[in-house]
Amino acid sequence: MSKHVLAQNQYGKAENRIVKITRKGEGGAWHEIRDLNVSVALRGEYRDVHLTGDNANCLPTDTTKNTVYAFAKEHGVDSPEAFGILLAKHFVSSQAVIHEAQIRVEEFTWERIPVATRKEQHSFVRKGQEVRTAQITYSQDTGRLQVISGLKDLTVMNSTNSEFHGFIKDKYTTLQEAYDRILATKVTARWANAASAAADAGHDWDRSYEKVRRHMLEAFAETYSYSLQQTLHAMADRVLDHVATVNEVRLNLPNKHHFLVDLEPFGLKNDNEVYFAADRMYGLIEGTVHRDGVQPVIATSDWITA
Amino acid sequence: MSKHVLAQNQYGKAENRIVKITRKGEGGAWHEIRDLNVSVALRGEYRDVHLTGDNANCLPTDTTKNTVYAFAKEHGVDSPEAFGILLAKHFVSSQAVIHEAQIRVEEFTWERIPVATRKEQHSFVRKGQEVRTAQITYSQDTGRLQVISGLKDLTVMNSTNSEFHGFIKDKYTTLQEAYDRILATKVTARWANAASAAADAGHDWDRSYEKVRRHMLEAFAETYSYSLQQTLHAMADRVLDHVATVNEVRLNLPNKHHFLVDLEPFGLKNDNEVYFAADRMYGLIEGTVHRDGVQPVIATSDWITA
Amino acid sequence: MSKHVLAQNQYGKAENRIVKITRKGEGGAWHEIRDLNVSVALRGEYRDVHLTGDNANCLPTDTTKNTVYAFAKEHGVDSPEAFGILLAKHFVSSQAVIHEAQIRVEEFTWERIPVATRKEQHSFVRKGQEVRTAQITYSQDTGRLQVISGLKDLTVMNSTNSEFHGFIKDKYTTLQEAYDRILATKVTARWANAASAAADAGHDWDRSYEKVRRHMLEAFAETYSYSLQQTLHAMADRVLDHVATVNEVRLNLPNKHHFLVDLEPFGLKNDNEVYFAADRMYGLIEGTVHRDGVQPVIATSDWITA
Amino acid sequence: MSKHVLAQNQYGKAENRIVKITRKGEGGAWHEIRDLNVSVALRGEYRDVHLTGDNANCLPTDTTKNTVYAFAKEHGVDSPEAFGILLAKHFVSSQAVIHEAQIRVEEFTWERIPVATRKEQHSFVRKGQEVRTAQITYSQDTGRLQVISGLKDLTVMNSTNSEFHGFIKDKYTTLQEAYDRILATKVTARWANAASAAADAGHDWDRSYEKVRRHMLEAFAETYSYSLQQTLHAMADRVLDHVATVNEVRLNLPNKHHFLVDLEPFGLKNDNEVYFAADRMYGLIEGTVHRDGVQPVIATSDWITA
Repeated sequence: MSKHVLAQNQYGKAENRIVKITRKGEGGAWHEIRDLNVSVALRGEYRDVHLTGDNANCLPTDTTKNTVYAFAKEHGVDSPEAFGILLAKHFVSSQAVIHEAQIRVEEFTWERIPVATRKEQHSFVRKGQEVRTAQITYSQDTGRLQVISGLKDLTVMNSTNSEFHGFIKDKYTTLQEAYDRILATKVTARWANAASAAADAGHDWDRSYEKVRRHMLEAFAETYSYSLQQTLHAMADRVLDHVATVNEVRLNLPNKHHFLVDLEPFGLKNDNEVYFAADRMYGLIEGTVHRDGVQPVIATSDWITA
Repeated sequence: MSKHVLAQNQYGKAENRIVKITRKGEGGAWHEIRDLNVSVALRGEYRDVHLTGDNANCLPTDTTKNTVYAFAKEHGVDSPEAFGILLAKHFVSSQAVIHEAQIRVEEFTWERIPVATRKEQHSFVRKGQEVRTAQITYSQDTGRLQVISGLKDLTVMNSTNSEFHGFIKDKYTTLQEAYDRILATKVTARWANAASAAADAGHDWDRSYEKVRRHMLEAFAETYSYSLQQTLHAMADRVLDHVATVNEVRLNLPNKHHFLVDLEPFGLKNDNEVYFAADRMYGLIEGTVHRDGVQPVIATSDWITA
Repeated sequence: MSKHVLAQNQYGKAENRIVKITRKGEGGAWHEIRDLNVSVALRGEYRDVHLTGDNANCLPTDTTKNTVYAFAKEHGVDSPEAFGILLAKHFVSSQAVIHEAQIRVEEFTWERIPVATRKEQHSFVRKGQEVRTAQITYSQDTGRLQVISGLKDLTVMNSTNSEFHGFIKDKYTTLQEAYDRILATKVTARWANAASAAADAGHDWDRSYEKVRRHMLEAFAETYSYSLQQTLHAMADRVLDHVATVNEVRLNLPNKHHFLVDLEPFGLKNDNEVYFAADRMYGLIEGTVHRDGVQPVIATSDWITA
Repeated sequence: MSKHVLAQNQYGKAENRIVKITRKGEGGAWHEIRDLNVSVALRGEYRDVHLTGDNANCLPTDTTKNTVYAFAKEHGVDSPEAFGILLAKHFVSSQAVIHEAQIRVEEFTWERIPVATRKEQHSFVRKGQEVRTAQITYSQDTGRLQVISGLKDLTVMNSTNSEFHGFIKDKYTTLQEAYDRILATKVTARWANAASAAADAGHDWDRSYEKVRRHMLEAFAETYSYSLQQTLHAMADRVLDHVATVNEVRLNLPNKHHFLVDLEPFGLKNDNEVYFAADRMYGLIEGTVHRDGVQPVIATSDWITA
């Protein structure tokens, strides 16, 4: 018998790719699609599974996969968040040994290929821009339901209105001050929704997603920036100002460096026209902004101080 | 001295990432961007470079990189094709030892983040859909200029109007005939442009790109399909019908399988609603269609029978 | 002024790729290499940077990059952990505004291409197996130095001695019980080192890495498994049993499913010989095992309950 | 009816991932594994499939997949080449409409985790170095069988004994001459086997693979290099000198640049010790070397002049 302690553990089926078609209109001619990647993680009484080979408490990961597909048929997919809430609550209520369930969803979005000559609309092209994300956690013990929405891979650029200067110079500093630079980043954003939104069966998750996305983009575009940190803060701040159901925003912003190419050796002046877009290394700026009085809940890579 | 034969060889700098900003309008307030990944390959008299360590004929790959950036300043970037033609002709004419140059370009496209409150427009979000491609080859010996345009990573889906049946059944066949299935693919397309277009300094490459793309999407959407091969042919055929400057189209279409999930074990009927989107294995359908009387030039993975 | 709260934030240069050559022996003929990917994150007094555009407290990410390269020259690279400790302590001590620094390192390993005919040994082939990882965090406020070592992308397989049965059957369960299956996984492991090891300038990090790696592999190979959870526990347990300086092990084990192909339609019996190796979906098993009496510190995707 | 011409076309199931276990020794206690990714492409009489929706000539891609798995059981997997030859010949002989078949194989290799305490040996760790490749093409019309072997992702480095100077300087040249630099590349190699080897049922493909690989590595290590082109040629030449059944070698060698970091601003001398390993852009050197009198058959990205 192990003399060591089994601490946090979880398991489930990850990356269940599911496409759900819904037919609407006369004769079901109008198709709508939701295209998801759903991951399930269960937490609970799994000591024996780990220590003795007794699987009596173990719901197979294969079953969690089946449940995802069956739920899409039984309940539809209203939104990543709504679908995740259904699943998380189901797992926790279905077996006493499951104390907590976490569902993670990625959504890939599509737009229509319009076909003027027919009533039927069932042709799509993948939008290919950001991936929408959601993480839903439901705990039996506390009854707490946490819904964190988000997006990733949204790449944005300002070709001017960005400066960076007045920084610390130590013995390893060679960076020149910049008074006009490109600012580009690939946004990963997560935002924690108020418990009231999570508890509201009528909450319009698609609409709040569009609002958050739009305010982040506008704040990025409209902020005259003295650092990517400042832009990060402006983006998060704007969301909290305009979307009442969001309590906390965390942004992860790699600085996609665009270096002005030195063309002087060729007798050319590069007046902020020609840039080299670099891959690595890159600045990485991360931060959380939240409403006064709420407890931040979105994971960071900080010390763990449970 | 080697007793073996040095045959086809080429070299150059690959994947030069370049962003070109062009300022227009009053005070240069309106920014336009082109975001490219440019690869250079040179062919010529490189026997000594390979055999003796004598680099007298070798233009460094670093120089080919510098040339890409300098040309963006000196000549601008009108389109991937026009930029590639300039570069290919330059390399071949700049050094007698360079007999042929091939330029490959990928273009990443951006759309504006509109800011209503200001005249300046310099904020962008990466479109993230397909990547536009171009391959330009210029040969000094023959004076031939070949321009192959293309795109990749354009993912499309029809959620109905696709069947597949009547196929060969051999002893290894277990596939059921399908009378209503999802048809989805990630399009890689290349099309060869007529020599007259390549030679025409005023050819509007952006416009012809948009036309080819639109006709391919429409053909995909409008074709009632009995196989992905048939859809492939319809897409290529449509382009040749509508874009006079295109002589040949080659498509590479992975069949992104969406399998109907069996929900009967759970007492549910899956009426073409819930699908599993599979990664691998996948059908892969490739084909070339060209105008009568032209010689196909786009590379295949066929026998090489020079 | 923002009425919201700026909470956890950090910044620095990520993915600084560095190769360090050390020459040993007569005439420096014996070369040794360390090939690292180093990321820096700084935490401290950055409120003004985010809110006012005042960068007086901001050490540029570019400077953190320069420091990584300069330190490789000044201090050498004894191991990922030792190098990370030097850097973390440097940043925190160099500027009062930096309260905490976190260094993350990936190491890519190489083996020699032996050349019998010469004394000089400076030719290498990348080993290409697992990537070694390290995360070092140093806090000025508490003086705490935390060193988490690890590895990722170590893919292992047992072609028998794995069963899975006796699990819960609910209405969504269709999985058959398995009495002989392939068990394969791609190991991501992190282990927390005792504070005494981190404080010991003479600690042999390479040796402890090799020990942990070996014991994990052996435990994987020697465990007759009734679930991947049980194998996970055995691997972590074995490390704690054999490596005194390790206090905690966390494993992330995707179940790389190998499905027995049904060959009966072709009149063939598949006696555990021919498998389909699937990509997605996959079971994902995660867990922490630690010594009795220590506080686990390795991040999980659990509730954040600071 | 289309007035355009359907030219080269092919189809089949790509990326069939298959693991084959073979049991040897007393009680089958000694397991051997082959881990492959097999792609099938068929060429033949497919005009109707493309033009009319008539699938009477179409063997489903699903059937080609089934055949791969069934053949692994029926015939075993002696080597990627031998397995590919079996499959290519089968498809061409099985249906009159199939005129040519091309099989592409990737092989992932594993090494044993030794367990001293037991006779049974069935535990493996993925080697993770290069991927072995093979492309087999069989044509019914000509009876020609072509076997191209290869590898990819084999990363090698010389930390000295590489120079580059004496090159062309044009107006865009800024590169400094180098008299001691790192030379690193990620090898993609393909080699065409003599028809006699392909026709020899007893040809030891594993042994010839090991020989080619070893000679390429040794030539890389032992060549004092004045350019990557020279190293490329030496590698190909060495293979042709030592492996009689190989007629042609084509190498694709990206120059993985390692830039010496300028440490002078920090008062440090960088005596070829600290390098930045860059991702993009990179030099790309490609070339074919073949025996005198043979016709090269390995695809290039050259003009297609059929």
